[in-house]
Amino acid sequence: MHGKRHSRPAWTETAPARGTLRSIVKYGDPHGFKHPSDGWVAMMKSEFAMSDDDFSRKAEEGHEPVTLNRPVGLTESQIEGLQAIVGTENVATDDYSRVKYSYGKTTEELMELRKGIVREVADLVLHPRHKEDVQRIVALCNEERIPVTVFSAGSSVNLGCRPEKGGVTLVLSTHMNRLLRVNEENQTATVQPGMFGPAYEEALQQAPVRFGTKRRYTCGHFPQSFEYSSVGGWVATLGSGQESTYYGDAYDLVLSQEYVTPGGSFKTLDFPGTATGPKVNDIMKGSEGTYGILVELTMKIFRYMPENTRYFSFMYPSWEAAVDASREIMQGEFGLPAVYRISDPEETDRGLKLYGMPKFVDAFLIRKGLRPMKRCLCLGTVKGDRDYTRLVKRKIARIAGEHGGMSLGGYAGRKWEKTRFTEPYMREDLQDYGIQIDTLETSVTWDNLHRLHKGVREYITSRPRTMCMTHASHFYPQGTNLYFIFLMKTRDLKEYGEFQKGIIDKILSNGGSLSHHHGIGRMLAPWMELHLGNEQLDVLRALKRHFDPRNIMNPGAQLGLDLGPERMRKMSGCPGE
Amino acid sequence: MHGKRHSRPAWTETAPARGTLRSIVKYGDPHGFKHPSDGWVAMMKSEFAMSDDDFSRKAEEGHEPVTLNRPVGLTESQIEGLQAIVGTENVATDDYSRVKYSYGKTTEELMELRKGIVREVADLVLHPRHKEDVQRIVALCNEERIPVTVFSAGSSVNLGCRPEKGGVTLVLSTHMNRLLRVNEENQTATVQPGMFGPAYEEALQQAPVRFGTKRRYTCGHFPQSFEYSSVGGWVATLGSGQESTYYGDAYDLVLSQEYVTPGGSFKTLDFPGTATGPKVNDIMKGSEGTYGILVELTMKIFRYMPENTRYFSFMYPSWEAAVDASREIMQGEFGLPAVYRISDPEETDRGLKLYGMPKFVDAFLIRKGLRPMKRCLCLGTVKGDRDYTRLVKRKIARIAGEHGGMSLGGYAGRKWEKTRFTEPYMREDLQDYGIQIDTLETSVTWDNLHRLHKGVREYITSRPRTMCMTHASHFYPQGTNLYFIFLMKTRDLKEYGEFQKGIIDKILSNGGSLSHHHGIGRMLAPWMELHLGNEQLDVLRALKRHFDPRNIMNPGAQLGLDLGPERMRKMSGCPGE
Repeated sequence: MHGKRHSRPAWTETAPARGTLRSIVKYGDPHGFKHPSDGWVAMMKSEFAMSDDDFSRKAEEGHEPVTLNRPVGLTESQIEGLQAIVGTENVATDDYSRVKYSYGKTTEELMELRKGIVREVADLVLHPRHKEDVQRIVALCNEERIPVTVFSAGSSVNLGCRPEKGGVTLVLSTHMNRLLRVNEENQTATVQPGMFGPAYEEALQQAPVRFGTKRRYTCGHFPQSFEYSSVGGWVATLGSGQESTYYGDAYDLVLSQEYVTPGGSFKTLDFPGTATGPKVNDIMKGSEGTYGILVELTMKIFRYMPENTRYFSFMYPSWEAAVDASREIMQGEFGLPAVYRISDPEETDRGLKLYGMPKFVDAFLIRKGLRPMKRCLCLGTVKGDRDYTRLVKRKIARIAGEHGGMSLGGYAGRKWEKTRFTEPYMREDLQDYGIQIDTLETSVTWDNLHRLHKGVREYITSRPRTMCMTHASHFYPQGTNLYFIFLMKTRDLKEYGEFQKGIIDKILSNGGSLSHHHGIGRMLAPWMELHLGNEQLDVLRALKRHFDPRNIMNPGAQLGLDLGPERMRKMSGCPGE
Repeated sequence: MHGKRHSRPAWTETAPARGTLRSIVKYGDPHGFKHPSDGWVAMMKSEFAMSDDDFSRKAEEGHEPVTLNRPVGLTESQIEGLQAIVGTENVATDDYSRVKYSYGKTTEELMELRKGIVREVADLVLHPRHKEDVQRIVALCNEERIPVTVFSAGSSVNLGCRPEKGGVTLVLSTHMNRLLRVNEENQTATVQPGMFGPAYEEALQQAPVRFGTKRRYTCGHFPQSFEYSSVGGWVATLGSGQESTYYGDAYDLVLSQEYVTPGGSFKTLDFPGTATGPKVNDIMKGSEGTYGILVELTMKIFRYMPENTRYFSFMYPSWEAAVDASREIMQGEFGLPAVYRISDPEETDRGLKLYGMPKFVDAFLIRKGLRPMKRCLCLGTVKGDRDYTRLVKRKIARIAGEHGGMSLGGYAGRKWEKTRFTEPYMREDLQDYGIQIDTLETSVTWDNLHRLHKGVREYITSRPRTMCMTHASHFYPQGTNLYFIFLMKTRDLKEYGEFQKGIIDKILSNGGSLSHHHGIGRMLAPWMELHLGNEQLDVLRALKRHFDPRNIMNPGAQLGLDLGPERMRKMSGCPGE
């Protein structure tokens, strides 16, 4: 035992050196770390047949400096024109900036960077100061046919930041990152797109001091990437927060938006409900920078009442029971929980092991009929008015009981909440030892949930030495999402890419949506036609032609808009319709 | 007093004769009537300086038969081609059909018909049997450039049914009016667009018998036109039901839709939430027949639990207090009421008079500080789970009390509910005596509500002998709607039209939306550019060009899509931007 304790890998504990590839690979705070627990290491050793020796040799750490040696593909006069708009201090042509602001956090991107492979990058990085800068930049780029890509927080996991055609990348988080107004009467906040989650939430919680409001507010949107994602990014990619079951998806949180497009600039109207034709405010959401640039948003906000939060967790005897209870809860019309998550048997059991459940607890659960690789954990919170949270928690507990769920109290929920934003930090540690952890996620109606879960799981687990943990974490009366986490040991890009393609194929062939809340980017673009059908993808393309006739906005496959059917089939490996 | 009682006008009590203009003018059931009460008559006599004599002479009753004497503007071969698709029994060219299916229930339309003025009508009326018929009709019409307009229930109040360019009108309510499936697991219903509200609701409530479900369901959408509107119409025009505060607007109730357009047919995907680019399902909503024809819908449905309904009503000392309390309720995060309505002082006091409030009650209210032309009535219901409805009602009562609201119990709500769908019947009676009752409605955020209410009311009441009653009846955390009911005595089309234009101008110049839930049609089309701005109207036009490059779908001003700025300015009388 003593020996085992000392076999902890030498996790990297220092911030990456400035200017290195690793500093681009690293998630979040350069000085922030969250290492896999000893339980994780033991699990991986067992699953991947790895020895202490394997965990003593890191490789492909990306400590090399970023060097590009690629000319800037813009003319002197173009560069001068852009400098004249934003000021020379807000224009960067150095190799490091060009690479850094061309990368998100997609597993393939990180694997490549660690190998020293640098793909398409921006020619020039601009830090616009305000929406007027953005207007002038877009006008100039449209005139000169220079591709324009937007970068804010860079936490995309689907190649959403890649400037596939080069050109300029606009970093919106440098200057356009402020909360402009809080309208307490309407419960709305007007915010710039480059504001990160924590700053936004902090400003809302401090609204009495900062904006003279009577109450404190919350944004209601807490994705896992909360700390390193931006308000504009939430809307442009259709994200969902971990409390979306109560507060709604990013789509639902937007009252109005202001856009700059090559075809013109406009601000949608601020009405709570209208019947004035198709809603332009909604048409723009999820356009991932392909129609124009989101330069200002008016978001719905909510009262901040943490004192009312109630926690719950249950262990169900089976996945079927957990799903049935969840459906009953979502359709019960007594209100909805905020966080609400159910883990499938594999995720549940790995979780119990990883968090070191004592043996006597396990024995107790088994005695109660909650058996390994059958039982399923459910955890969550209820938010809102005090009496409302009491009622909703009570109702959930009753339905859980009716479905064989055993209450585990609020502990699991509180524990989960503590690390809700830090899980991504583990990825660097794992990649140092050649282990990839990645996720794919999908949406599904209740009546297809089990088929989809089974079909995708079978595919993932059919690969030798591959782990698959699944949960549902965003609920609606009509269904939920499924979030597949898979772990495998490989440094082989081709092998990895093909396995990932296979999972996407299985999601679609089992009737899941191509994405529930990660967006499409370039990674999922090749499946867009197969998924939406030609007629519907053509609707998005017609809008693209309208806003951006010269195809300068995030060109090169984003959302699949400028991929032809032939290229889609080739990239996805799908035979097509 | 005895004499007064006998002065009741000789309201029409018989169904209109077949084939007459009046049979087209009449709302709802030909044998259904709801006459103004004696209180109404007394009020009108007083407001409009009308005598018993005035109420003894009806005029412009429209008893004349419909005669058209206009050739069918289609070729023989076009007619034969259409007959070959739907069968001769489903094609009508008779004058009566051509007029009947070209008219909605807009006040101007009814005023005109009563004068014997018949405006643009369809050349041919088709009753498609199923979506395949619709596909073939649209293909043929696109080939031959024949305009296509859709008619289902014909309760439009903004010239939404008018086939301004002639062509064919498709009546979807004749055959395409069935509930196809209820999916109990997903809580969805798949329904044809021409199904009327009562048949749809009845089928859902009887789902255990008709579809073998365990539970009974409700559609959650109950507009005032419920009995004479169709599911497809609700979505195509973005309606809101009287319980939208709880169930959502028609926009929110749609999981997926199937469309036939000249550019192709498609069915949107059935996912509860997605991040796969702009949502085509939402892009189509509110397109009012200009992009294509909605041929099938999958709607969200809700548990039918009438036993849990709770009623409430309050009298507030002022409009400001009623609005403040309502805002607190909508933002309180304890759940939302279903029906929720607040009446402004004029509507409140007229309502009290009309429903014959005894003098001692009035005196009691006044003693309590609830004074005439200050006090405001609030009434509503709570639906959902039993404990939830108890909680929400209790919370509403507490907030009402904090704002000076005096509870009047559930009586007012129950009474209102009894006549919730029959108010439109009064219009025929009033028009027989030259009195027009009409409505315009708008959406607004809380912070602009009072300005908008005041501005529009001032304009309406500045006209001599004109009544204006206002309520808010569809609530959101960010705001509500305002519904202006105005009454005036005139048979003059020009005078009426100009007054109505003036109200629309006042709504827009005071920051209201052009419509909250009546849609746009042709009546409000001239203001679309002023309201949305050129850039946003151009987005809708780009979609139009995509779906319908030959402009055959509901052409001629609908939504303002084929109105140029010049014509808009001329029609609206607005100077434009």
